Amino acid sequence: MDQADPVVASPPSVGDMPSEEFRVQAEAAVDWVADYLRSVGELPVLARVRPGEIRSALPPEAPEDGEPFDAILEDFRSTILPGITHWNHPAFFAWFANTGSGPGIIAEFLAAALNSNAMVWKSSPAGTELEIHVAEWVRRLLGLPEGFEGTINDTASHSTLYALGAAREVAFPGVRETGLSGLPQGRIYTSEEAHSSVEKAVMALGLGRGGVRRIPTDPDFRMRPDLLEAAILEDVGGGVRPVAVVATVGTTSTTSVDPVAQVAELCRRHGVWLHVDAAYAGVTAMLPELRHHFDGWEQADSIVFNPHKWLFTPMDCSLLYCRRPEALAEAFSLTPEYLRTREQGSARNLMDSGVALGRRFRALKLWFVLRYFGAEGVRERVREHIRLARRVAERVEAAPGWEMSAPVPFATAVFRFAPRGVVPEEQDRMNLQIMEEVNGSGEVFLSHTKVLERVVLRLSVGNLRTREEHVDRAWILLSGAAKGLARRMAAD
Amino acid sequence: MDQADPVVASPPSVGDMPSEEFRVQAEAAVDWVADYLRSVGELPVLARVRPGEIRSALPPEAPEDGEPFDAILEDFRSTILPGITHWNHPAFFAWFANTGSGPGIIAEFLAAALNSNAMVWKSSPAGTELEIHVAEWVRRLLGLPEGFEGTINDTASHSTLYALGAAREVAFPGVRETGLSGLPQGRIYTSEEAHSSVEKAVMALGLGRGGVRRIPTDPDFRMRPDLLEAAILEDVGGGVRPVAVVATVGTTSTTSVDPVAQVAELCRRHGVWLHVDAAYAGVTAMLPELRHHFDGWEQADSIVFNPHKWLFTPMDCSLLYCRRPEALAEAFSLTPEYLRTREQGSARNLMDSGVALGRRFRALKLWFVLRYFGAEGVRERVREHIRLARRVAERVEAAPGWEMSAPVPFATAVFRFAPRGVVPEEQDRMNLQIMEEVNGSGEVFLSHTKVLERVVLRLSVGNLRTREEHVDRAWILLSGAAKGLARRMAAD
Repeated sequence: MDQADPVVASPPSVGDMPSEEFRVQAEAAVDWVADYLRSVGELPVLARVRPGEIRSALPPEAPEDGEPFDAILEDFRSTILPGITHWNHPAFFAWFANTGSGPGIIAEFLAAALNSNAMVWKSSPAGTELEIHVAEWVRRLLGLPEGFEGTINDTASHSTLYALGAAREVAFPGVRETGLSGLPQGRIYTSEEAHSSVEKAVMALGLGRGGVRRIPTDPDFRMRPDLLEAAILEDVGGGVRPVAVVATVGTTSTTSVDPVAQVAELCRRHGVWLHVDAAYAGVTAMLPELRHHFDGWEQADSIVFNPHKWLFTPMDCSLLYCRRPEALAEAFSLTPEYLRTREQGSARNLMDSGVALGRRFRALKLWFVLRYFGAEGVRERVREHIRLARRVAERVEAAPGWEMSAPVPFATAVFRFAPRGVVPEEQDRMNLQIMEEVNGSGEVFLSHTKVLERVVLRLSVGNLRTREEHVDRAWILLSGAAKGLARRMAAD
Repeated sequence: MDQADPVVASPPSVGDMPSEEFRVQAEAAVDWVADYLRSVGELPVLARVRPGEIRSALPPEAPEDGEPFDAILEDFRSTILPGITHWNHPAFFAWFANTGSGPGIIAEFLAAALNSNAMVWKSSPAGTELEIHVAEWVRRLLGLPEGFEGTINDTASHSTLYALGAAREVAFPGVRETGLSGLPQGRIYTSEEAHSSVEKAVMALGLGRGGVRRIPTDPDFRMRPDLLEAAILEDVGGGVRPVAVVATVGTTSTTSVDPVAQVAELCRRHGVWLHVDAAYAGVTAMLPELRHHFDGWEQADSIVFNPHKWLFTPMDCSLLYCRRPEALAEAFSLTPEYLRTREQGSARNLMDSGVALGRRFRALKLWFVLRYFGAEGVRERVREHIRLARRVAERVEAAPGWEMSAPVPFATAVFRFAPRGVVPEEQDRMNLQIMEEVNGSGEVFLSHTKVLERVVLRLSVGNLRTREEHVDRAWILLSGAAKGLARRMAAD
């Protein structure tokens, strides 16, 4: 029978990279990475290439025959690396600075080797349970009550999409089946300072960007609850259905903090879903002295917090907590026969919590990071980043012609060169010029935004390699560029 | 001034894992992974744990103080590993078998170390350009014409969501701003055999699952174009607006192939967006002898193909090609001030192609895989998997009581134990019992589905370690379990 068949071995050429070659090449990669992490601070932080330059160095077609791994690694070093903006650089201060930490990097390597996919429990029991479990660890560290179920998505954009999808299902029960056609207009409320991902999610969900009401903020860039309530009442009176309020703890431009407790009370009163975007600042809920910023978030229906932002976890890792996980499942769960398993009902299948079916083992790196640094180790590091950002703020406040543009509740300083006697539009151009000059140095990299219509600079501290010398150097470069610019303008 | 400040160094405790510790621990991880990849075939492929077992072995709270890395790695081995279903196992035949290959694993390690985020070109020029470039490499290998712009998402679920989001914008211009409320019902057409991700995307987009029309299939499980056209005509007559047709090359249950050329002609005639789901089978377009399955896909508006399925790339890597990238941008692009860069306009910002803002460096592993194996190396390996799946099919066809349930165009065999004189419902139970017994052996792992309402078994070959001995062993276990079951039933 079958066993008696002549054994015809598969040709040896069709396997994976041989085990010994893997060992040698992975060790070469480890050497490179260890050197890289030690010396990344010596590289230009912002890539010094022009658009198209990297592509022009690459052949137009994939090779027909396999190439030696050495050659690939060499091209990685010589061709790709010059086109990398180094997020792991100690003087990366742009957007929200972050860290792909050592333990996180090793965990990603292990996860790639396992290549497990936790779409259902059975396809990765450990992937499923560790995800649920580290989400619980983090929930406790953040001081959130039981009942918030966490799952890990790739980005806050998708986490917010899923959360607002659940809110949409609650506001319009059965909408997953019927669709929005023929239903009243639904409304999402968020502040003028909220992240663009809120609008993207609303667009994707078919609620329309017009379905977003941007509530004005107070002088500290916090959503005004009185105007939020007025908007809700106006909408309800006009037949528009409130779907959700998105409050932010740590907005992107200024890291301002919405008055979550007041917003939560309004949401409770009007029966509206509350989603809290703490993608950036969430980690600071671990610090008793900053916990007050989060007052009221325990009443939220959903919360997003990204460990890949300020919890030293490599991209991508976005935690979505939901206090009404049944709503998430009502909005998104769907089990075709080919994904049905015996454990249906006795174990959670993570695919039920969103759109993505495939789920790589993102929990592993978060577990490694939390254990390696420990909760107190995380707090110490976060505190140090806050100290460094405030150090910059002190420099700015003491410097003539410069001004802080917003308070510094976390580790992002927002400021502006605003010399007297220069019109605001000209000041805007000067700030952009200062930024380009400083970024062009290759020594530091920061980004800009607009606050009250004016261009301001942002310096965000979030990398574990950042020391005083790096933020001090940033300030020297900034103030030097401003002085040079002012001098040149005076000479004109 | 600033330079004269006393130098107060940051405390040494606040950094990342020290460089030398990283080197030692990453080397330990390499040793473990090299051993794992060599010997994974000796482990039970399906995890032998009960729901809750992994969690119960984990402490309820994160440690307050950091732990030695050795202890973490040891717990990974002793606690996590027993809960892993080994996707990289040579006898993993469930769902769609895949491979996290050696070069891909090393590339993931490098990508985690760089931790770059290609949201805009400037934030990762090489990440952006390599993504565009390897998508071009793959486009050429697949024989798709110029004009299909590729981007990499995490999963086909999101790729399909984005594609259908673009289709929705074309069908309802301006819907991103207005939302769907007040607009006519939109319709998505797909076959009865299409993947659940189509329905999930439609639900997320607010079109409603009721907005999906499942077109019946022919005896080979291919969408019937005549019924598709009838459905479109009926809808148009009834005021329902066709939004998109999703045709599949390689459906999930049976890997059937929709008649894409005929469907494309219908879509052209009726002005409907055509999305082709080739998430699984797409790689076979690289094989001249299988290219005919893809006839007509060059007329599609969008195509999804997942290199993490059958192109040896670790999770996650889903290529979305769009021939109307401006529609994708119309549906999703949004640039807040804090993401505006000088290169706006002169370089592509990948965030404009979907919902997710953050994008990790997924292109790197695909580049490594394509170069290491080479195009011809990929073809040889894919051909070998097809040969192995057909070998199983031959066994099934020759065995009394067994029957193939669908043709085998690719590397997935779909079959069923259907002994004479047993009613179909009883046969269903027998097949599930055979599957559980075989999976319980730990030697192989396969999954089931339903075809024409009947339970069938699926054996999918896609791992680079799979050899004849593994598929032969699977067949011995399957046929043995069936014989034992039949014997026990006869004895009752």
